[in-house]
Amino acid sequence: MERRSMLGAGLAIAAAAGPGAERAAAQGQAPAQASALIEKKVFEGGAFRTRGGATIPNLRLGYQTEGRLNAAGDNAVLICHFFSGNSHAWGQVTANGPRGWWDAIIGPGKAIDTGRYFVVAVDTLVNVNVPDAGTVTTGPATLNPDTGRPWGMSFPVIAMRDFVESQKKLLDSLGVKKLALVAGPSNGGLQSIEWAAAYPDFCARVMPVIAAEIDAWLQGWLNIWAAPIRLDPNWREGDYYGQGREPPLRGLAEAWKIVTLHARDRAWAAQYDHKVPEGQDPARRIGDRFAIEKWLDDTVAARARTSDANSFLYMVRANQLFLNEYPSLAAAMAGAPRRWLMLPATTDRIFALEAVRDFAEVLRKAGKQVEMAELAGPLGHLNGVAGMAPHADRIRHFLAS
Amino acid sequence: MERRSMLGAGLAIAAAAGPGAERAAAQGQAPAQASALIEKKVFEGGAFRTRGGATIPNLRLGYQTEGRLNAAGDNAVLICHFFSGNSHAWGQVTANGPRGWWDAIIGPGKAIDTGRYFVVAVDTLVNVNVPDAGTVTTGPATLNPDTGRPWGMSFPVIAMRDFVESQKKLLDSLGVKKLALVAGPSNGGLQSIEWAAAYPDFCARVMPVIAAEIDAWLQGWLNIWAAPIRLDPNWREGDYYGQGREPPLRGLAEAWKIVTLHARDRAWAAQYDHKVPEGQDPARRIGDRFAIEKWLDDTVAARARTSDANSFLYMVRANQLFLNEYPSLAAAMAGAPRRWLMLPATTDRIFALEAVRDFAEVLRKAGKQVEMAELAGPLGHLNGVAGMAPHADRIRHFLAS
Repeated sequence: MERRSMLGAGLAIAAAAGPGAERAAAQGQAPAQASALIEKKVFEGGAFRTRGGATIPNLRLGYQTEGRLNAAGDNAVLICHFFSGNSHAWGQVTANGPRGWWDAIIGPGKAIDTGRYFVVAVDTLVNVNVPDAGTVTTGPATLNPDTGRPWGMSFPVIAMRDFVESQKKLLDSLGVKKLALVAGPSNGGLQSIEWAAAYPDFCARVMPVIAAEIDAWLQGWLNIWAAPIRLDPNWREGDYYGQGREPPLRGLAEAWKIVTLHARDRAWAAQYDHKVPEGQDPARRIGDRFAIEKWLDDTVAARARTSDANSFLYMVRANQLFLNEYPSLAAAMAGAPRRWLMLPATTDRIFALEAVRDFAEVLRKAGKQVEMAELAGPLGHLNGVAGMAPHADRIRHFLAS
Repeated sequence: MERRSMLGAGLAIAAAAGPGAERAAAQGQAPAQASALIEKKVFEGGAFRTRGGATIPNLRLGYQTEGRLNAAGDNAVLICHFFSGNSHAWGQVTANGPRGWWDAIIGPGKAIDTGRYFVVAVDTLVNVNVPDAGTVTTGPATLNPDTGRPWGMSFPVIAMRDFVESQKKLLDSLGVKKLALVAGPSNGGLQSIEWAAAYPDFCARVMPVIAAEIDAWLQGWLNIWAAPIRLDPNWREGDYYGQGREPPLRGLAEAWKIVTLHARDRAWAAQYDHKVPEGQDPARRIGDRFAIEKWLDDTVAARARTSDANSFLYMVRANQLFLNEYPSLAAAMAGAPRRWLMLPATTDRIFALEAVRDFAEVLRKAGKQVEMAELAGPLGHLNGVAGMAPHADRIRHFLAS
């Protein structure tokens, strides 16, 4: 698939968080520093055996690091990204480019202090930002060396656990012996939990933000997120790559629309209450739209051009396969690390506050030490990306505990 | 459009509420009575001028009544139906057919006592159950007498207020002078509120169940509900009626899927946690599904065959146009009737509990007397259809107050 734009991941965050989030992030930022640019690196992992039993011959994942690994190899922090994000979690990759999505809490002197910790963030397998030159992933848009054509829907199923295993290969290659912290928002929080289940002795602390169990309720919602892609006649069972074919941008845009609204809340949407765009008359013309609809349509049309529909479907499945190797959440968490900091958003419409509380209860019953604090703000779920600044001290203390 | 099935509205309720709901409704029913069958009637309203300024030459709406209107004409109760429902709110229309969706609280001797009140329920304009012979509506599937073909998307936009105006015509023709109560769940609650704004002196009491304001947040969600229909290539801009054409059943099914899950909650979905259907292996085959996905797919495929896609789009717009003639909710409610009973569902994912509380606050600030009680149960939003029995006494007292 051709790389249409270099803006993919940046737009991912803008589309995910919106202007309100940018303001919130800006308010929480430390004073501007003349820090060096972050170098985007590529991990060439060779053959990768998936948990489902398939082999990907050429694992390639982008990543970024800052700080120095100590001699014991135990001052590493792994930051896992959200559904639409990539490894650009902090700092600047280009001189005039945007800062990473958790820049409020990661960097020199910040809560997750790159002066003390060796911080790593990795582009997941099947990352959706395929057209973005700043994202390096292996997924359905990757060339299958056996056929010389993109894998499409013949790419093996990837589970959340495969995200962990591919990251483990990278961390091993970097000499990391132990993670002082594994953390991330949303899909990144799920990765953190999957890490805690798979490698409890490797993870000293776990910080899932805006994340809880993927139960049948959320498996159903993930199905709904994906459905518009399969409805788009341009999807062609995933066979849309190459000359003269159009990708299923309408279906992908509608898929992003669901994610975009689901990840927000009514307090955010209130800015569009009772508003109708210039020239529109939805009370008289059935094709006309309200202001919130126009904002959604414009936002997701742009987002579709910087992402890949098949990768979206694989990312949905990876989320549905959260902790799929364990008979229950309690079984998965029985041997998990002891120290947890959970940060739900009060008005999260994806991972409801009570679902996070239920998750914490499972941990506590298993004898874990769970600290919890709520993320406030009008953004709903996205408070876990854009609203982290007020919790910087709490995170700093958790890391020092 | 041919009438494919007589099961439409029955299935509407089954698909909306599911087996759990049927159990709940059954538990709440009064002892079986040898009550007479309810007769489905048709109101021939003649020419109808929409609030948007268009004229529909031949208004036809189905309705049912029970009880007797008193000499003053002021013992009438109007029951308004939900998005996917119809006027079959109580009783039996056929000897072996299902009982109506609020049968737990309406009927002889029940909370809304047809021995004391003249109870009326009306199929809305643009009702989605077009293939159901038990539903009579006027909408995009109706023949336009000017062309001899179905209106399709040339049917005029219908607002929530048009539901009220068409029902007012019927009530006037029946001799009703005043409603002792206007009530309904969800979209029926919105109609009740719209009645309260339009005809405050005509409505003594208002009981919106699982309903609050349609703000930009919900206008956006309504857009998302509708989007799959427009993606289906069989939709053809609404021109799918007639010989040799296939209606957009896949898109319509995906639209119903969103409604179906949105109207439930995680406690309901828990029965599908960690379940995979026989023969499916979603960890290895990207096209395979989890149990919750199969249940959704099966349920909505059946529901699509008993409903009409264009009518779904018009119903979405009618909901988006809730109270659209008023500058604000406070302005709409300033002159509203004084007595309100609001019944939100604690775990409603469409009309969140705090949204209902915000609505009640607007009413109280305007000097209204608002009683509120929460509907419990695992069904989320649908508790307002299937979980009414525990509130029967409260409703009886409200009516007597």
